[in-house]
Amino acid sequence: MKIATFKFNNERRVGVVDDEAATVSPLDLAVDRTQQGIQAIIELQVAGSALLPATSTPIPLDSVVLEAPLPHPRRNVFCVGKNYYDHAHEFSNSGFDSSAAQGAVPQHPIVFSKVPESVTGPDTLIEYDPAISSAIDYEVELAVIIGKPGRGISRENAMDHVWGYTIINDVTARDLQGRYSQWLVGKSQDTFCPMGPVAVTRDDLDLADTAVRTWVNDELRQDSNTGLLIFDVPTIIQTISEGVTLLTGDIIATGTPAGVGIGFKPPKYMVDGDVVRCEIEGIGQLENRLKNRA
Amino acid sequence: MKIATFKFNNERRVGVVDDEAATVSPLDLAVDRTQQGIQAIIELQVAGSALLPATSTPIPLDSVVLEAPLPHPRRNVFCVGKNYYDHAHEFSNSGFDSSAAQGAVPQHPIVFSKVPESVTGPDTLIEYDPAISSAIDYEVELAVIIGKPGRGISRENAMDHVWGYTIINDVTARDLQGRYSQWLVGKSQDTFCPMGPVAVTRDDLDLADTAVRTWVNDELRQDSNTGLLIFDVPTIIQTISEGVTLLTGDIIATGTPAGVGIGFKPPKYMVDGDVVRCEIEGIGQLENRLKNRA
Repeated sequence: MKIATFKFNNERRVGVVDDEAATVSPLDLAVDRTQQGIQAIIELQVAGSALLPATSTPIPLDSVVLEAPLPHPRRNVFCVGKNYYDHAHEFSNSGFDSSAAQGAVPQHPIVFSKVPESVTGPDTLIEYDPAISSAIDYEVELAVIIGKPGRGISRENAMDHVWGYTIINDVTARDLQGRYSQWLVGKSQDTFCPMGPVAVTRDDLDLADTAVRTWVNDELRQDSNTGLLIFDVPTIIQTISEGVTLLTGDIIATGTPAGVGIGFKPPKYMVDGDVVRCEIEGIGQLENRLKNRA
Repeated sequence: MKIATFKFNNERRVGVVDDEAATVSPLDLAVDRTQQGIQAIIELQVAGSALLPATSTPIPLDSVVLEAPLPHPRRNVFCVGKNYYDHAHEFSNSGFDSSAAQGAVPQHPIVFSKVPESVTGPDTLIEYDPAISSAIDYEVELAVIIGKPGRGISRENAMDHVWGYTIINDVTARDLQGRYSQWLVGKSQDTFCPMGPVAVTRDDLDLADTAVRTWVNDELRQDSNTGLLIFDVPTIIQTISEGVTLLTGDIIATGTPAGVGIGFKPPKYMVDGDVVRCEIEGIGQLENRLKNRA
């Protein structure tokens, strides 16, 4: 099932998407509940509701504005770095990798975060200022959305805690990522976390075999598969939750494959007007345009 | 002025502390506003209120339970690493420093985060599990609390955005900090962010000369001064806010001086029952006990 957060008549709603009919059916939720997007639905399901709230008349998708499924995550987005072999090598060879001394391929997951206010929706602008960074890069990532909370979650039980998935473009200022050693600032610039276009529930996606791709101005740059993750989703959940309680609505971006701008020689950073389109099979396409805000 | 978040008769309140009288005078705030602790007061002041809400009858401090001034920060706590020369050297020599390849003393601020739910109050337990980490360390830090929000804040204007200060003990699992390369997980274990005992407003603290100390079981371990920060508070605010909008209630822990457990040979990690007491002149003492929760 595909669930979207969207605006219709300037009001935020949450609804079920029907791809064939190209419609979204709003779920019957109180207005204050929809402000947190799909968080309301996840919480209902975690609390044991077998059924979704009733839906009202389907609305054509082309008359709504899709937003990030979780427009205001409850805390920073967890992210895993260097989690595909091919990307781990391209990044370690780039000269910007403050973790390169520990080897190209990590022995353990590398976990960092992006501030929640960096989240933006599909079809919005990724804004940058060339005086701050001249090395803006894209990273398509499968993002896991946590349902049932927990600490000390085993690999075996980890999937019980996954509510579903969405796409994140982990936009990165490579120069800041290198300069500040820890990655928070280079990853958290305002608008640097496009998310969407929708979320899908757990059963809709096969972690062992789902295509992950990025185009920049229609040029295919990243083309990989979630089956190639170094640390799989259960391992990531076990690692973070060992001593950090995971909460309903937490988001974990699982890392990006090869083909980011910094992997090319010379690097292909994004520039004003570039359109970046991230695709994950079964979820859809997340498209955003770069804009120089200076 | 000292402002505290506290529980009295099991209800969360916010009040003004009078050290001489050893009382706290509750501020007249709606119950739902006090849930976020001093956030309500900061927002009122940022909105232009010259006066605080009225206070009611003072309560003796020994009949309230002090809590973290911001018990549920709005997003992850920003933290600066290796920001005193003496600590930068002791940490780089420890073997656990994933940023050591870039030199002992950083050329730019190292910024990472701790999840908001790691926050705990004064006189609570820091809980750990020896099966997860056997290298629990303390780090006393001056924490800046942001008032007026902003992006692109200059060094010159930075202090206009500071509402005040509190103490954070940036408790760290050294083994996890090293293992995961980025520091989020080792710094964000549940209960690893004691905060308090109160907050003080900006004018109450002299950044150029304020003593910072830690005792473990009454043994003085850290003894430094905020005047010795490598990157001062205006520089830190300028760095983070260059492209990341800082928000009212954001917390920035400014780094710890030498004397942490890992600085000793052999290291003096904390163990079950240890009492750690962090002090910052003019704010007070933040005391917590280690507890093995296994």
